[in-house]
Amino acid sequence: MNVWALRSTDEVIEKARAAKTASLGLGIAPSNARSEALRAMAEALDHNIDLIVKENEKDIAELEKKDPDSPLVDRLLLDRKRIQEITDSLRQVAELADPLGEIVEGWRTRQGLEIRKVRVPLGVIAVIYEARPNVTVDIIGLAIKSGNAVILRGGSEAINSNKALVRVVKESIGGLIPEGAIQLVENTDRALVDRLLELNECIDVVIPRGSAQLIRFVRENSRVPIIETGAGNVHIFVNNDADLDMATKIIINAKTQRPSVCNAVRKVLIHSGVAKIYLPQLVNSLRQHHVAVKGCERSRDIEHSLIEAKEEDWYEEYMDLTLAVKIVDSVQEAIEHINRYGTHHSDAIITSNINDANLFTLLVDSSTVYVNASTRFTDGNQFGFGAEVGISTQKLHARGPMGLKELTTTKYIVFGNGQVRE
Amino acid sequence: MNVWALRSTDEVIEKARAAKTASLGLGIAPSNARSEALRAMAEALDHNIDLIVKENEKDIAELEKKDPDSPLVDRLLLDRKRIQEITDSLRQVAELADPLGEIVEGWRTRQGLEIRKVRVPLGVIAVIYEARPNVTVDIIGLAIKSGNAVILRGGSEAINSNKALVRVVKESIGGLIPEGAIQLVENTDRALVDRLLELNECIDVVIPRGSAQLIRFVRENSRVPIIETGAGNVHIFVNNDADLDMATKIIINAKTQRPSVCNAVRKVLIHSGVAKIYLPQLVNSLRQHHVAVKGCERSRDIEHSLIEAKEEDWYEEYMDLTLAVKIVDSVQEAIEHINRYGTHHSDAIITSNINDANLFTLLVDSSTVYVNASTRFTDGNQFGFGAEVGISTQKLHARGPMGLKELTTTKYIVFGNGQVRE
Repeated sequence: MNVWALRSTDEVIEKARAAKTASLGLGIAPSNARSEALRAMAEALDHNIDLIVKENEKDIAELEKKDPDSPLVDRLLLDRKRIQEITDSLRQVAELADPLGEIVEGWRTRQGLEIRKVRVPLGVIAVIYEARPNVTVDIIGLAIKSGNAVILRGGSEAINSNKALVRVVKESIGGLIPEGAIQLVENTDRALVDRLLELNECIDVVIPRGSAQLIRFVRENSRVPIIETGAGNVHIFVNNDADLDMATKIIINAKTQRPSVCNAVRKVLIHSGVAKIYLPQLVNSLRQHHVAVKGCERSRDIEHSLIEAKEEDWYEEYMDLTLAVKIVDSVQEAIEHINRYGTHHSDAIITSNINDANLFTLLVDSSTVYVNASTRFTDGNQFGFGAEVGISTQKLHARGPMGLKELTTTKYIVFGNGQVRE
Repeated sequence: MNVWALRSTDEVIEKARAAKTASLGLGIAPSNARSEALRAMAEALDHNIDLIVKENEKDIAELEKKDPDSPLVDRLLLDRKRIQEITDSLRQVAELADPLGEIVEGWRTRQGLEIRKVRVPLGVIAVIYEARPNVTVDIIGLAIKSGNAVILRGGSEAINSNKALVRVVKESIGGLIPEGAIQLVENTDRALVDRLLELNECIDVVIPRGSAQLIRFVRENSRVPIIETGAGNVHIFVNNDADLDMATKIIINAKTQRPSVCNAVRKVLIHSGVAKIYLPQLVNSLRQHHVAVKGCERSRDIEHSLIEAKEEDWYEEYMDLTLAVKIVDSVQEAIEHINRYGTHHSDAIITSNINDANLFTLLVDSSTVYVNASTRFTDGNQFGFGAEVGISTQKLHARGPMGLKELTTTKYIVFGNGQVRE
């Protein structure tokens, strides 16, 4: 398919072409213009809070009509405080160093060619996501700051909010950067997602953010290269020499602070050397926090009241206050279990032993490996990136929280004075 | 599919499991052991030249029986000189700096977490390639040096050569690194390629190297992430202020030195300001080198003898001594043409104007952009990487010639002292 020669088009094709065209201008817009555009967006959003809240109320009303108790209501909500957080984040990203133009490496070859490897934008980024409208502005900010045009395809339940946010933001950037650089797909028909995934001529990368089902669909159907953001079957391993109070504090935080997010803990592995003392303590604390605890056979020998954990449990990413506990005999066994059943997202060891800490961080094959800290820190904002595009659980291109740099690529620029190959 | 629980298996599953297991040991093997393994391979190949040449002769004889004039014969051939080149390259790669363990970035967060972003191997790399058996050893060397296990699936026409090379190499590394880290798929049945592309549990990346058809097949069928190596519809633009002798020297080199490779030039764009003087000169030189020249309408007005270039020609990657010429009115028009019809591989401008050189390198959206040099330098060896895994024309993960660093990923290692998220 030659997308430029197509006669019959639809919304996605039109917007993808417009984004591609705008990306050329945006990619060479000076750093100042891109940062200024983010500040202008933040100001425009501040001035239009009432409008945005009103449009968001339509989405909320629509959802509550269908399902008054939907957990989506909270994810969908935009109030003054949340809009304030969004504009704070835009202003933070505006202040970050420009990733573009960085000379990543450079050298002179044996024939005298001067090679520079220079950081450049990817071009056009498409993001497919679900309910949360704050994602709309986070992504726009990161994309524009890194010189990329962006095509947003949010969930149908947030369409009024997304339309209002994008309208306000686009009106604010005229004269600074090409308006075509920001495109919202307004028709939330599923067929247009299929279309988006075909347009490898205009779109450089697709990032799916949301349910495992959405991510699988995009992986299996996209012709455009994708960056997977991931599921989190997250583990914490309590070693036989761990500070047990610290372990409990970390596990309770990682399990209960926000149980549905991808960096929340799902499994606790306990070294057999401390299991008899520690397991009853931990179970007690977890139950005070309303956590349902499942356990392996050995842990149920110690704590008879635990629910039986089946083989499938070790693969599962519980999205609620459920946790499964397994007793292991060594740090090696913990590592093997994590690499076999985990999702390569975030895993932690609680230990005072430097050798075990190093072995664990060396061998656990995950995007982020912690020693004595909560797994909840795997997050662009916590890492200091201002915002995040998502957390990559793949190994190619980007791994872990994705900020500005992860939205760039490089290009070799080679200067010679007539060299030919011998 | 859980590949570890499968009862019925085939050669690919067995070898993928073995590679995955070996990759864990290899990933933590010290730098010395990996470099020493490469030197041991080179020595073993030197000692077994006769054996390898003999096995290669079987492949050549088989091919010549089917098609005595096949251009594959040259690509397939291993003689003393070529084996020498292979072992030289192994020794060069052995001397390169170890990419593993590099702390790419590191910082302390506002809550006092110590974050390090550390370079680690991808894990298991599968390479699917065609006739050239030297690729077998180049890939093994780069993979092992960068701490990755490798699964090789070469073409059926090179199977005796590949078996001999892999046997010799594997025998030499015992005691240094796990032998399971090198796996050759000996059954060259196509069904086993399909199988390979399913094994995303064991294989971290698939790299197809070869025809456009092979690459498309892998892109459309792989569940494992891929790095595309690419087609080269390569352009050279001669600006109105170019040193015309230099331009001709570069075009003749880029067209005729090895016309079938991806970095050879396919299209020449000439600024209308010099076309009347330069086109006849260039056509004359090209014809002396037996190049068939096609041209756009404007160029055929100057040189009536040119073959007509049709719209399809501008997309085509000629694999022989064919070249098409187009006249353009500005550097901007040249850039637009290249971005529209090119394959984002390598493109060059010949100019003495610094502004035009900068505009061209900024806006041409290709892996490697040259000023006043032959496009034939886009090559891992020419870049100083010792060897190459291929030349990536995609933007994610790796772009341009891929050496050691492109076979790695990073992991975040985070040390705390009990931090939890507020």
